[in-house]
Amino acid sequence: MSGFVHLVGAGPGDPGLLTVAGRRALERAEVVVYDRLGTEELMPLCPPDAVLLNAGKSPGRQAMTQDEINAALVEHGAAGRRVVRLKGGDPFVFGRGGEEALACKRSRIPFTVVPGVTSAIAALAYAGIPVTHRGLSAGFLVVTGSESGDGEDGIDWEAAARAATLVILMGAANLDENMRRLAAAGAKESTPAACVRWGTRPEQEVVIGTVGTIAGRAREQGLRSPMVIVAGNVAALADELAWFQPGPLAGRRVVVTRARAQASELAGRFEALGADVIAAPVISV
Amino acid sequence: MSGFVHLVGAGPGDPGLLTVAGRRALERAEVVVYDRLGTEELMPLCPPDAVLLNAGKSPGRQAMTQDEINAALVEHGAAGRRVVRLKGGDPFVFGRGGEEALACKRSRIPFTVVPGVTSAIAALAYAGIPVTHRGLSAGFLVVTGSESGDGEDGIDWEAAARAATLVILMGAANLDENMRRLAAAGAKESTPAACVRWGTRPEQEVVIGTVGTIAGRAREQGLRSPMVIVAGNVAALADELAWFQPGPLAGRRVVVTRARAQASELAGRFEALGADVIAAPVISV
Repeated sequence: MSGFVHLVGAGPGDPGLLTVAGRRALERAEVVVYDRLGTEELMPLCPPDAVLLNAGKSPGRQAMTQDEINAALVEHGAAGRRVVRLKGGDPFVFGRGGEEALACKRSRIPFTVVPGVTSAIAALAYAGIPVTHRGLSAGFLVVTGSESGDGEDGIDWEAAARAATLVILMGAANLDENMRRLAAAGAKESTPAACVRWGTRPEQEVVIGTVGTIAGRAREQGLRSPMVIVAGNVAALADELAWFQPGPLAGRRVVVTRARAQASELAGRFEALGADVIAAPVISV
Repeated sequence: MSGFVHLVGAGPGDPGLLTVAGRRALERAEVVVYDRLGTEELMPLCPPDAVLLNAGKSPGRQAMTQDEINAALVEHGAAGRRVVRLKGGDPFVFGRGGEEALACKRSRIPFTVVPGVTSAIAALAYAGIPVTHRGLSAGFLVVTGSESGDGEDGIDWEAAARAATLVILMGAANLDENMRRLAAAGAKESTPAACVRWGTRPEQEVVIGTVGTIAGRAREQGLRSPMVIVAGNVAALADELAWFQPGPLAGRRVVVTRARAQASELAGRFEALGADVIAAPVISV
């Protein structure tokens, strides 16, 4: 019997932003190839006997290369296994999911894509910033700040400067330089801007400023990766619309060991207080 | 006791693309204000005694205005109810969710935002088109085609023509004109393009062409609203990467009347065949 590869978007970090289809795929997975960033919280959903392959960097070991990831998907798929490739955010938003889909296709491994909530939209939403807003922004441009700015994959800064809302993913390292380039390409230094670190998670931090000031403010606050950056008038709504408050248990892990039927309700109550809930259901004997 | 308003993104149409948090909010809702487009399938998740308010157009009645919607959210929230505002896609992507959040804020009604999977990314993914792809597109611009192209909310066609991937939502009505404007602003007529109607749903239809040909082809195929349009080199991947096949039960509705514990498994099996499953759990007496 042929296996199956599901390219699943894990969403931006809040485990509640995983999709129903994504959860179902994880619950039935035999092999899960995951990145560390933003997906750890979801691993308890996998069956206890699933093979978990960490494709990201971790202490003492290197990240898998894209070729190694593609090969792992194809190998396990060809061996007849149900494989989940779990990626932060959406698989096709700078996730190299297209390359993984092509690898499956070219080896005749059936695959599906389970889109995810992208942090480009959701991290801003949790900071009180609507990516579009009537009268302020009728569109948004999403780019990645990790590119060098040169060559085919680089950012077109003139187009970026014209975007009503510009969202830069993975932009922490080049934040200073990118804001300078944006201004040099014609964006006003007074354009509202914000940085959202660990968006949608209990550890979320938000820094607000302008294209001219945001890099300095982020540095003062010690804001580092992972970070979503937004420049545009919508960023000015953050002050008024901020709604997300990490709960009193923010950042705490709670292991719920009740039987499955009770665990779900209990888990929901802890989650509402901001806890990261790890379900460890006990079967009564 | 104060009520609560949840602005929930329903996702692009496939009920599996609702988030876990969105489902939880619906299951606990006392009042649901919904649009018809893309959210009908989710209504069975609401408690049987929830008040359902249709904010969209339907036979014999007009759509609610945005002011009426805002007022309904505030009124029910102030009355202490748990209110869900259910919107297709993501609440902040041309969804006027920002205005609803402001209305809540200004009336001191607590609210949360539950971001959703946007059709701007997911409808393309289901047509085999990754919105970004290494070497082909390092960014994407999302605009709405329903605007006139003039005034503050209009499309900046020169910026649109420079986008590596341009996604136009709600662009069916002005497709011809918009493709002409895009070419006039500098996009090559040979740039790959695609239209995806009812993306992610069993009725999904895809038409492939170029900036120069796509409007004519969509007209020939009788493709109408709701439609996501993409222009950019990534659209050329659709032929190779198309993976979504409506199942043998595509477009059929199946009512599952088992007790809740069995219904979920049975529903999953029908869904895998493409059916729209309506759960109508029976409590044994």
